[in-house]
Amino acid sequence: MLLGSIEAGGTKFVCAVGNEDYQIKDQIQIPTTTPIETLTQVVNYFKQFELAALGIASFGPIEIRKTSPKYGFITTTPKPGWRDTDFLGLIKKELKIPISWTTDVNGSAFGEYTMSTLFNEKINSLVYYTIGTGVGAGTVIDGHLIGGIGHPEMGHVLLKRHPDDLNFKGICPYHGDCLEGLVAGPTFETRTGKKGEDVPLTDKTWDIMAYYIAQAAIQTTLILRPNKIVFGGGVTNETLLEKIRNEFQRILNGYVEVPPLDQYIAPPQAANNNSANIGNFALAYRLLLE
Amino acid sequence: MLLGSIEAGGTKFVCAVGNEDYQIKDQIQIPTTTPIETLTQVVNYFKQFELAALGIASFGPIEIRKTSPKYGFITTTPKPGWRDTDFLGLIKKELKIPISWTTDVNGSAFGEYTMSTLFNEKINSLVYYTIGTGVGAGTVIDGHLIGGIGHPEMGHVLLKRHPDDLNFKGICPYHGDCLEGLVAGPTFETRTGKKGEDVPLTDKTWDIMAYYIAQAAIQTTLILRPNKIVFGGGVTNETLLEKIRNEFQRILNGYVEVPPLDQYIAPPQAANNNSANIGNFALAYRLLLE
Repeated sequence: MLLGSIEAGGTKFVCAVGNEDYQIKDQIQIPTTTPIETLTQVVNYFKQFELAALGIASFGPIEIRKTSPKYGFITTTPKPGWRDTDFLGLIKKELKIPISWTTDVNGSAFGEYTMSTLFNEKINSLVYYTIGTGVGAGTVIDGHLIGGIGHPEMGHVLLKRHPDDLNFKGICPYHGDCLEGLVAGPTFETRTGKKGEDVPLTDKTWDIMAYYIAQAAIQTTLILRPNKIVFGGGVTNETLLEKIRNEFQRILNGYVEVPPLDQYIAPPQAANNNSANIGNFALAYRLLLE
Repeated sequence: MLLGSIEAGGTKFVCAVGNEDYQIKDQIQIPTTTPIETLTQVVNYFKQFELAALGIASFGPIEIRKTSPKYGFITTTPKPGWRDTDFLGLIKKELKIPISWTTDVNGSAFGEYTMSTLFNEKINSLVYYTIGTGVGAGTVIDGHLIGGIGHPEMGHVLLKRHPDDLNFKGICPYHGDCLEGLVAGPTFETRTGKKGEDVPLTDKTWDIMAYYIAQAAIQTTLILRPNKIVFGGGVTNETLLEKIRNEFQRILNGYVEVPPLDQYIAPPQAANNNSANIGNFALAYRLLLE
């Protein structure tokens, strides 16, 4: 059986074809230009295959409430040309198969949850954070994605400021110094004048980042009590993860029990940034079982 | 049919008997002394009735993982004499009926969720915060309580500090200036030298409280996207709720859509502090339907 996956980002769309064992058979990248141009290429790509179902994980914000007339739309994105785009509707018109619809980070969360079942980790809830150009997170609770009145937007919470970072105003256009405003990739340039990849891991900017990201992990822990928190995205690396673990332990101060931190605060298990593809395959396959 | 409810607090146990329509038929209060003394009185009270099932909502921390050998225990509480008490086991030995087991705030959250269904609010997720001697919260998502590795402890997250409150160190013995450390009832005395009920609602301490509690509501909104956030507990009042709504709106800055704020950030619908009793009845009744 063949399943399709679209990981729709603001720069590129990754389209993949795989099977119900999550093996990728084919994959292409399509630049994100206009909705009509990009989505036409997407449809033409998938029409080469006999897909049983398709999963879409899209940049947002998107409408995920099935009761809404705008279900399947990209809604209030600042991305030029994409505001109020009926993404799901346009794909559905061309591909007459079951299609799942969620956010990019929910797709990745579901992919990492799926990976954990393949590795027999016996977990039932997981949160996936991406720390990159932006900051977002997806959540699986008891095997299901959550969101009563919309999808989570976990990147925009406020945090206790680091004492050595009080003069930094943050870069979020909505909130200034929310999580995204304090730790998204572009904050490196604002703080240090250098791109993140050029800031040595010994620079204390990384410690400040870890302090904030650890607070996000604390919130996630105390509010959701998941089995695992995965950190992906371009800013994340093993040195940063280890700093996050140390800050997490220091701040939590033993208040609640958590799994061993090297398993609890972890990098993605899906190789080659394929978390969202695997999540899409799994969500698409689930539609066929319903 | 008769259902039982225990709302177990650090000062008193409220025991109630009601029916599957959540009507309370009888109720007593038992002081919290030693486990053996208090629980014996509880059992003797309920033995007067022919209960079909019982719900327990307890102060914590408690063990809620059914796979744990300590399932049903109050675990690491600082309350003298109650650490590692097999609460559920002791009750089960005496009352041979189905018994549900959760935290006090989860009981209240489930009660308020139940009330919302009675008022036909058509919601599927709700968070209940208590702001009192301590701060805690319970969560219902898609009609179920959550917690993969334990129950939520939402009172202990860190927050952005209010510019006029930077010198206050907070009173949480674990975390200093976490949410509980900044807004629990006893902070009034530490900040102003007066008990909360003696601090006029025009005093700016209430604005500082609202700033912090609004951040908790923001976290809850962005992480869980519930349909409703209920605030109960001794510190809460309508003036404070209105201040919280204003701060919430200011901080969120239109980033995501939420229901009208007077419905979204709301006081309990259950009268006379009966949220937990109603939640217990509903959870106990659910056991009979499984």
